[in-house]
Amino acid sequence: MCYDTAVMPQVWTIVMAGGVGSRFWPVSRRARPKQLLDLFGDGPMLRVTVDRVAPIAPLERTLVVTGEVLRDAVREALPGLPPENLLCEPCGRNTAPAVGWAAAVVRRRDPDAILMVLPADQHIADVPAYQATCRRAIAAAAEGAIATLGIPPTRPETGYGYILRGAERAEGVYTVDAFKEKPDAETALAYLADGRYAWNAGMFFMPAALFSDELARFEPELAAALDAMVAAGDDAVADGYPALKKISVDYAVMERSDAVVVVPGSFGWSDVGSWTSLYDHRRPGEGSFHLGDVIERDGTGNVLFAADGGTVAAVGVDDLVVVHTRDATFVCPREAAQRAREVVDVLAARGEEDLL
Amino acid sequence: MCYDTAVMPQVWTIVMAGGVGSRFWPVSRRARPKQLLDLFGDGPMLRVTVDRVAPIAPLERTLVVTGEVLRDAVREALPGLPPENLLCEPCGRNTAPAVGWAAAVVRRRDPDAILMVLPADQHIADVPAYQATCRRAIAAAAEGAIATLGIPPTRPETGYGYILRGAERAEGVYTVDAFKEKPDAETALAYLADGRYAWNAGMFFMPAALFSDELARFEPELAAALDAMVAAGDDAVADGYPALKKISVDYAVMERSDAVVVVPGSFGWSDVGSWTSLYDHRRPGEGSFHLGDVIERDGTGNVLFAADGGTVAAVGVDDLVVVHTRDATFVCPREAAQRAREVVDVLAARGEEDLL
Repeated sequence: MCYDTAVMPQVWTIVMAGGVGSRFWPVSRRARPKQLLDLFGDGPMLRVTVDRVAPIAPLERTLVVTGEVLRDAVREALPGLPPENLLCEPCGRNTAPAVGWAAAVVRRRDPDAILMVLPADQHIADVPAYQATCRRAIAAAAEGAIATLGIPPTRPETGYGYILRGAERAEGVYTVDAFKEKPDAETALAYLADGRYAWNAGMFFMPAALFSDELARFEPELAAALDAMVAAGDDAVADGYPALKKISVDYAVMERSDAVVVVPGSFGWSDVGSWTSLYDHRRPGEGSFHLGDVIERDGTGNVLFAADGGTVAAVGVDDLVVVHTRDATFVCPREAAQRAREVVDVLAARGEEDLL
Repeated sequence: MCYDTAVMPQVWTIVMAGGVGSRFWPVSRRARPKQLLDLFGDGPMLRVTVDRVAPIAPLERTLVVTGEVLRDAVREALPGLPPENLLCEPCGRNTAPAVGWAAAVVRRRDPDAILMVLPADQHIADVPAYQATCRRAIAAAAEGAIATLGIPPTRPETGYGYILRGAERAEGVYTVDAFKEKPDAETALAYLADGRYAWNAGMFFMPAALFSDELARFEPELAAALDAMVAAGDDAVADGYPALKKISVDYAVMERSDAVVVVPGSFGWSDVGSWTSLYDHRRPGEGSFHLGDVIERDGTGNVLFAADGGTVAAVGVDDLVVVHTRDATFVCPREAAQRAREVVDVLAARGEEDLL
């Protein structure tokens, strides 16, 4: 397979914004999942994600894949997004159909396009370093690779998949020796010490045609169904999408393709997994994370979050998460904030639809 | 002085509802002070106060003294209150002018009336026992006494004034040897051990004429000003009231009059001084106080209060106060809940009028 590199192809951003989740309850709701939240005071994460790579791909070359239920909310978050660049899944089929759909759509508009596939709900502290890493991955993609970003681990994290790099193919670009599932604690420590392992951040760069070709090789039925769906037009999505195979892009392509390379990059990456993780993003010299109108006295180690224009006042408490929204307040120890999920389960069992 | 006891005179309730305060922030606001809050799920404390003595004095014989700023809120809480029974102070002048005003108003309608003066913001667990104590105090008043209720102390409380009782004058009715200011801790312990001391709960029973006479004796200028103001009609209040002497009913009359007696009574009295005090009112067998829609998991010793139809979810926390309102959330250790005042001070300094 050969890709013309005489002219640098155009880069298209594919933003994966279909996620649902309950770890940011009560701010996150079904109609307002994490990627639409403003967790840092700089705007919805989806918009920040798009703005972060705007020097590489403008909105005209940005596609957002999300759920049908989020169509209006995404439009509100990205009013400049061309309507034809918003792909709304009628139901979730995991990431391979989503990326495959976007790739098929882009190929029809720009056969030589390079795709930059980005989750909509990650935080990046050092944007220039991130953009430089993206450009390196794009250059690798332009030479016919499927490049995935690898985050050098800073702790023995058991919540992420890892990528074991092999030989350096070009400056800062490595072959991939293995993708590793989420490790146990002991293994995570070994990965951290080894130095060749990186976190899989779910950011991929590749020619749209290469991705489609690889998908056709490994998942021919899925690829054919996607091509037929896109050829038939938007009306075919409602019927066709639910019938697609539910499979992740990692399983379908990344872990099988010989074209995959890894580009390590340290740029203050965080997947912002729960209220707890916001604590790492407190301002320098501050003992607590504050967002919104917060009054804190005699306390430290807190995550204090006032949404919906409200106020949080915390006096004499330490190491708590306190989240205020117009209709609900959530309080828990900072290190247990993932238990917001339990509250959502209780609300679901009670049928409190307004709060879900 | 002699009062006709051949016919039992009618009892009028005077509810003192002019209080302001910040200890129940964020639920309490300037326009919604404690006496208008529903802290127990049984309605605004003002209404509960009136309903509690309805078998003794109906709404037609109930006067509410409050601040002008609370006029509409009081009407909403007590829609059945005759408009002429609502006395709105243009400004606070402490309790002697308030009681004196009400006494003067009642005397013009019912010269033989007995007044039952009650704070609007107290909680009483055993209503039948309370009503029985009131009736005993009313009987003493009908015989020409100023009867004050005394609460036998259950702890060495330093936050209340005490009444030292003397000889028993009638069954359950005692002379008063002394009113005592708020004691220090050591003195409070001695009072508790002594057995003759009772908390001054600010509830008084007396003929309206006797009160007016005693006020005229001890504070002649104040009494004359009040009489002139009432004789001149409602329009005189706006001008006359601010000029009245600022003095408490305790200083002006109770501590000076020879007619004062004390009627001890145990009926589960609480002045509900702060969020902390609600903890004493949790349901039997429950580890936390809940009001409103509350979800608590793996926690105990909490005061969890969801106002404005909202939800409080607390997971894995103990001994906290968590209060949710539509526009603000307050969190602090249970035993430090009086620090809500500090938050109000901060908000006042910031000029956040909406939250005050």
